[in-house]
Amino acid sequence: MEKKEKTTIILFSGDLDKAMAAFIIANGAAAYDHDVTIFFTFWGLNTLRKEESVSVKKGWLEKMFGWMMPKGANRLGLSKMNMSGLGPKMIKHVMKKHNAMTLPQLIEMAQEQGVKLVACTMTMDLLGIKKEELIDGVELGGVAAYLGDATEGKVNLFI
Amino acid sequence: MEKKEKTTIILFSGDLDKAMAAFIIANGAAAYDHDVTIFFTFWGLNTLRKEESVSVKKGWLEKMFGWMMPKGANRLGLSKMNMSGLGPKMIKHVMKKHNAMTLPQLIEMAQEQGVKLVACTMTMDLLGIKKEELIDGVELGGVAAYLGDATEGKVNLFI
Amino acid sequence: MEKKEKTTIILFSGDLDKAMAAFIIANGAAAYDHDVTIFFTFWGLNTLRKEESVSVKKGWLEKMFGWMMPKGANRLGLSKMNMSGLGPKMIKHVMKKHNAMTLPQLIEMAQEQGVKLVACTMTMDLLGIKKEELIDGVELGGVAAYLGDATEGKVNLFI
Repeated sequence: MEKKEKTTIILFSGDLDKAMAAFIIANGAAAYDHDVTIFFTFWGLNTLRKEESVSVKKGWLEKMFGWMMPKGANRLGLSKMNMSGLGPKMIKHVMKKHNAMTLPQLIEMAQEQGVKLVACTMTMDLLGIKKEELIDGVELGGVAAYLGDATEGKVNLFI
Repeated sequence: MEKKEKTTIILFSGDLDKAMAAFIIANGAAAYDHDVTIFFTFWGLNTLRKEESVSVKKGWLEKMFGWMMPKGANRLGLSKMNMSGLGPKMIKHVMKKHNAMTLPQLIEMAQEQGVKLVACTMTMDLLGIKKEELIDGVELGGVAAYLGDATEGKVNLFI
Repeated sequence: MEKKEKTTIILFSGDLDKAMAAFIIANGAAAYDHDVTIFFTFWGLNTLRKEESVSVKKGWLEKMFGWMMPKGANRLGLSKMNMSGLGPKMIKHVMKKHNAMTLPQLIEMAQEQGVKLVACTMTMDLLGIKKEELIDGVELGGVAAYLGDATEGKVNLFI
């Protein structure tokens, strides 16, 4: 039995374009039968937030972070040409025209293909994000979990 | 016969400083006899655009993208301290002073050394960029082509 | 005797959040007994600058770069939500609350664990930064030094 290739991606960025790139690579690698893990850290964690408000107890600074950061994959901005939200609308428009998958669809596909989505516990602590605020099916882990996977992989990207 | 090392770089960014970093690493790796591939995706694709206008048929949104994004390696901005174009001028000035190669020269050198330059077809579709708008010698490919190269490489960077 | 895993990180970014990510991964890998090297290039070099002014001879453009760029790990901004310095203050506040290590502490820990910190000589030349302006214990190197380490490593990140 041949060992599977391992691919890991750290998604640090909370930008729509970079999150799409991460999931397109992850889904491609999963289709080629790689074991794929995406670690969501810092702003990247916003990709995994639920759109609806979840009632959890928080300090005021954690609440402020929660308000200021985009809630979920549908509300991310672009790393370039964001133009107060016009850029993402333009991109979503051309994506629809070309029948390209949206970010929420890419995430769903990744989960169906068994891509492991790991939320960085250190970031969750710092920014005051609770597990119940994240979409279902997400695992929690730290830098040790990342290194365990990455040292067995050849394609290890930081996005 | 020993197998060559493989190095792959995804150039996602359309910033002058990051594009220079990508080509400096690529040229270095090629000089050490690695097989090197750079995949140009999203904003990174602007690095490969010809400076002169090429007449191709496009929809209005594709035209707008074409106008708003920098046309070619000479017109990229900086990721930091861009200051409406003053930053790139300052950097280009010090590069000239130190006889450092410009980005167009780094691209030419990469092509002479056999670095494979691959434009992401999905991005070309989305942003409406046609092959004849890109510099000569560029191949077209998708995520499958990238993964094929990257799984054989050890140095795989996302820039 | 088993060979040690090698991990390399290129720190291109001069943002506090990205520098913290780099050092958290580097310290984690060093704790798992990897040989770890961080290469500081472009804006990333600012992480290594001493806070105090060091009197060195420079041209006016090099002086200007020196003034405009953040002096050391304590003065870096955030890649997102910087808000003219309010963002970094908020992050530092929550880090203190959670007893998380500051960036200068992470750097110190990395040096104690034997993480090799390499300043990119080409960037130093271009931006006019001298060795005596950098913190102690930093090595100098170029793209050849980087490739030498990276081709032996599996976890090679560009941050």
